[in-house]
Amino acid sequence: MTTNQLISEIHKKQSFLCIGLDVDLNKIPKHLLEEEDPIFTFNKAIIDATHHLAVAYKPNTAFYEACGIKGWKALEKTIKYLNETYPEIFTIADAKRGDIGNTSKMYAKAFLEDLGFDSVTVAPYMGKDSVEPFLSFENKHTIMLALTSNVGAFDFQTQKMEGKELYKKVLETSKSWNNSENLMYVVGATKAEYFSEIRKIIPDSFLLVPGVGAQGGNLQDVCRHGMNKDVGLLINSSRGIIYASKDLDFSISAAFEAKKLQQQMMRILDDIN
Amino acid sequence: MTTNQLISEIHKKQSFLCIGLDVDLNKIPKHLLEEEDPIFTFNKAIIDATHHLAVAYKPNTAFYEACGIKGWKALEKTIKYLNETYPEIFTIADAKRGDIGNTSKMYAKAFLEDLGFDSVTVAPYMGKDSVEPFLSFENKHTIMLALTSNVGAFDFQTQKMEGKELYKKVLETSKSWNNSENLMYVVGATKAEYFSEIRKIIPDSFLLVPGVGAQGGNLQDVCRHGMNKDVGLLINSSRGIIYASKDLDFSISAAFEAKKLQQQMMRILDDIN
Repeated sequence: MTTNQLISEIHKKQSFLCIGLDVDLNKIPKHLLEEEDPIFTFNKAIIDATHHLAVAYKPNTAFYEACGIKGWKALEKTIKYLNETYPEIFTIADAKRGDIGNTSKMYAKAFLEDLGFDSVTVAPYMGKDSVEPFLSFENKHTIMLALTSNVGAFDFQTQKMEGKELYKKVLETSKSWNNSENLMYVVGATKAEYFSEIRKIIPDSFLLVPGVGAQGGNLQDVCRHGMNKDVGLLINSSRGIIYASKDLDFSISAAFEAKKLQQQMMRILDDIN
Repeated sequence: MTTNQLISEIHKKQSFLCIGLDVDLNKIPKHLLEEEDPIFTFNKAIIDATHHLAVAYKPNTAFYEACGIKGWKALEKTIKYLNETYPEIFTIADAKRGDIGNTSKMYAKAFLEDLGFDSVTVAPYMGKDSVEPFLSFENKHTIMLALTSNVGAFDFQTQKMEGKELYKKVLETSKSWNNSENLMYVVGATKAEYFSEIRKIIPDSFLLVPGVGAQGGNLQDVCRHGMNKDVGLLINSSRGIIYASKDLDFSISAAFEAKKLQQQMMRILDDIN
């Protein structure tokens, strides 16, 4: 998917919501455990109930790997279902990968080509040649960790490297990499005040923003500081939406929570127009 | 496996060799492609031919993920075979994972508990709470990226953070984390001169050292600067061993290459005793 297609969907749906499909068998409704593939059944129900409210879905690979082969099968089925049924949806493999060049190439191929995701998240610690293999895929996107939403972000990311915080150094350095126009960045919502600083460095890039809801971030603040002319934000919510209820009608509750966020987003988009 | 058991194996085998099982279907002998599970068949042959020369095996998950479900099945079979047939072998899932706390916990469970690896590699960018979930498993080990062997290592890892290179900051900070005695570190062999500096910060920890052979590092130099009283090194070689030949007797060629490294290691161990 091109960035312009994503922007167009955002305006059409009046939403920049990304739903995190972090499926934990201990948290999904009990009745689904009787299904042959509880994870996919859960995902399909959530997707069908919310696809008109969200522009992106983001399965975190950890939750699938934790279920072994069954988990990988469910991940394959989920991305296949999304691509076939809702091709207008932007898909994110939240994998946080990164390795030496020829190995990163294997990861890139696995997620962007074989599984067919539109994007994959990567970690920056190993530098340019660990990320560039992901950037070389046309109309695909690489979402690099910049400033994450967890407490550990203060261990290294916000520490100063030659007078400048590491996450800023990461943002600046990455702009010079080959095909850097395919880069997006992860910036946690728990630190809304950082967004203005970040926008000085990467005014045009899309930011994937976890941490609204369960992790405590505020949507209004993030938008005030982080939005750009193309909206430029994908706000992720996982637990707050997908685990809204454990009842038989869990997907309706999920849609209800997604709708609340979408309505807030619609008002924000109205206000800036 | 405890660290003492690993040290004991090193002395018994006179080897601190780790063999990287980075299996690429385009590089393995052609005749194996007719097998039902070419990846596992290849791994089993390599392991059976080299297990007396190596103390550790390290499949890099990228190569298995690149083959989808078949790849994950082969990974499961490989670790199961290692644990059942050669329980004295130290196993490393080279996964370079790292995420927010509850998600890292899923990865840790997947690799250390469900798959049953002795250790897993992780990335430090997200800090303490992204790594500690891995450290809480008894007699398991977490191998954190410090200074990697690729060119991109110079982008951030060797840049100074408050007067000190980032990789040193990573090493120092990690010493205060819960269960840090379960930490080992990845340090690339391409930078032997850095090992003396690293040993000042973490004199006792084991270092996993990629980059000997294909990536150009020198074994003698690494040992001179990096060895400690417990040896404290696992030297990884992947391509140089597993792709030594594409003939029918590829595993014999692999054993021959492994033996060359083991013999060098034996001489080094002799010299220090």
